[in-house]
Amino acid sequence: MQTELTSSSSFGALGAQTVTIDLAERSYPIVIGTDLLPAAALYAHLPKAMAALIVTNTMVAPLYAQALQGALAGQYAQVHTVVLPDGEEHKTWQTLNLIFDALLQHGCDRKTVLFALGGGVVGDMTGFAAASYMRGVPFVQVPTTLLAQVDSSVGGKTAINHPLGKNMIGAFYQPQLVVCDLATLDTLAPRELSAGLAEIIKYGPIADMAFMDWLEANMDALLARDRTALAHAVRRSCEIKAWVVGQDERESGLRAILNFGHTFGHAIEAGMGYGAWLHGEGVGAGMVMATELSRRLGLVDGAFAARLQALVQRAGLPVRGPVLDAQDNAGRYLELMRVDKKAEGGEIRFVVIDGPGQAAVRAAPDALVREVIDACCT
Amino acid sequence: MQTELTSSSSFGALGAQTVTIDLAERSYPIVIGTDLLPAAALYAHLPKAMAALIVTNTMVAPLYAQALQGALAGQYAQVHTVVLPDGEEHKTWQTLNLIFDALLQHGCDRKTVLFALGGGVVGDMTGFAAASYMRGVPFVQVPTTLLAQVDSSVGGKTAINHPLGKNMIGAFYQPQLVVCDLATLDTLAPRELSAGLAEIIKYGPIADMAFMDWLEANMDALLARDRTALAHAVRRSCEIKAWVVGQDERESGLRAILNFGHTFGHAIEAGMGYGAWLHGEGVGAGMVMATELSRRLGLVDGAFAARLQALVQRAGLPVRGPVLDAQDNAGRYLELMRVDKKAEGGEIRFVVIDGPGQAAVRAAPDALVREVIDACCT
Repeated sequence: MQTELTSSSSFGALGAQTVTIDLAERSYPIVIGTDLLPAAALYAHLPKAMAALIVTNTMVAPLYAQALQGALAGQYAQVHTVVLPDGEEHKTWQTLNLIFDALLQHGCDRKTVLFALGGGVVGDMTGFAAASYMRGVPFVQVPTTLLAQVDSSVGGKTAINHPLGKNMIGAFYQPQLVVCDLATLDTLAPRELSAGLAEIIKYGPIADMAFMDWLEANMDALLARDRTALAHAVRRSCEIKAWVVGQDERESGLRAILNFGHTFGHAIEAGMGYGAWLHGEGVGAGMVMATELSRRLGLVDGAFAARLQALVQRAGLPVRGPVLDAQDNAGRYLELMRVDKKAEGGEIRFVVIDGPGQAAVRAAPDALVREVIDACCT
Repeated sequence: MQTELTSSSSFGALGAQTVTIDLAERSYPIVIGTDLLPAAALYAHLPKAMAALIVTNTMVAPLYAQALQGALAGQYAQVHTVVLPDGEEHKTWQTLNLIFDALLQHGCDRKTVLFALGGGVVGDMTGFAAASYMRGVPFVQVPTTLLAQVDSSVGGKTAINHPLGKNMIGAFYQPQLVVCDLATLDTLAPRELSAGLAEIIKYGPIADMAFMDWLEANMDALLARDRTALAHAVRRSCEIKAWVVGQDERESGLRAILNFGHTFGHAIEAGMGYGAWLHGEGVGAGMVMATELSRRLGLVDGAFAARLQALVQRAGLPVRGPVLDAQDNAGRYLELMRVDKKAEGGEIRFVVIDGPGQAAVRAAPDALVREVIDACCT
């Protein structure tokens, strides 16, 4: 894949790098650097408004809410904060409604700017709240997890879960700005760091084998939270995602390749109950399963599959799927995957590796998928 | 106002007229005529899908659901129906979720086409469900009330209510097609017919005094449900709305004039409890109040205000607002209007008549608004 360098130096005074998501009038910058979150200058070019609402959770609020409030105080006459419960199991309408309650109780008008301060769950809910409040208000992503910095806060996918399926209710809605402050990763639990690495690893096999080489050479540095290594990994991930999203904002084609490992991963998350496995953990095992499917389809060889599995394992991620049903495990996976958004007319669409560094979306015979599940689950 | 004629004859074989909403790749036709709903040919050009879901309510389902199902049966392998409770008080998340439940229980994929069969409440909820299900599926409006045919089903505004405000949660999301079957108006209660006339009357003072003249000459025919008169009124209303929406899809400016009478009207609806007054009834009294405000601002004369009030009254609509608070009625109105979506930074934005046939949006001193409320409420 050819990816244009999209960096600019407009935030250079903060020692930051910028990747631009290029979507005409909905374009926006992703700013990557250290100690950005408290820098008031970063927010100076946002749309003018009377009020801002910071949406965060019980885990992140004590760490960063005050710093962000301080950075915004000069820009907005009112800066409100709403603190949501933490965890994927709270990505529901009931929790989303806490954001609407706060907006209406504070009399927030349709220029109010929302700030998503937290991980993917906070970002997805804040984005959907921003898309829907008064039919759309501006919002900013301030992701504090590695996963959110390289994936969920970039590209404009927002959603909540429904009891019958993950991310089933949402919107494509782009933020005004994404602020990736690498300093916030210092407080991340090791399990969360690994979950973020799953989404970083993903970009290698689907788009850029040179990046996969780099990840193999730098995995120890990433696990040690070396900021130079993290900055490169976040930037390269965002560049690849920007390139894909810029061509297919609404996932009518190419963008689906970003879901590599996610069809199996979503089945694992749903089957175990949301929150039992982290999203990135499901993606880790899911990538191994999707690669095994690619191998059995004759698209990649065993050496490639072993190489990917080794990298997933080194990142501290599970490489085998859980048993979701002792009687008919493969049947349960298939049932869960059929309600995935990528399914069409009951046919499951898998992202497969169509040769190293290249992905494709295709169906596969149920019998073959059953073999993969039987071979890859413990 | 200059309005281009936008009719075409692509649905001429059905004896129908067409008005086009011109929004580039989101453009769509409004087809107006008699006995259109059961005509399978009308739906032949919609996107292909395995399944369709008809969303309707307990009032409309027994009248028209079977006819629409029959018309769609040749086009979709599965045609499901979900029946919602009837009434503005059900325009809530809980009711919206019945649509998501049905979609997921039937395994509907992201090509599924939704059909809104009913009035404005069904249309608003179906549209928002379509905007949000899997981040967007196609939908069709089949409005069966006059109000929905001339206003709510045209232009892509969708929403649900929040306990603290009407239409606070929603999306701008355009349908693929709007089918205005005048035959469905035969079953409309007289009170609902009058409510629809409020939104028709609106188009005169804000945009087209010749249409106001026509309405004065043809009000008796409209109340008698003369189909030729209804066809003209629906078509002209849709043409004016198409012209406005085509220039300002997301209500950043001009489009706000379509809310003439709605700021007072929404306060009446909210203050009385949703469902006590019909939306069109609130708009009827609201237009009289907004015109009185325009008069006190020196924008129109007393003769114009009297003329509008007479037309609203002839349509069978209330011309005075209710008392919402015996202690401080004007204060209660102001409080309710301050949470209106058009308010900005706590300042209420009123649509005023800026001379006959022309509207503007502006603020007004609280003291003057209090005078208007005191003069216009019983």
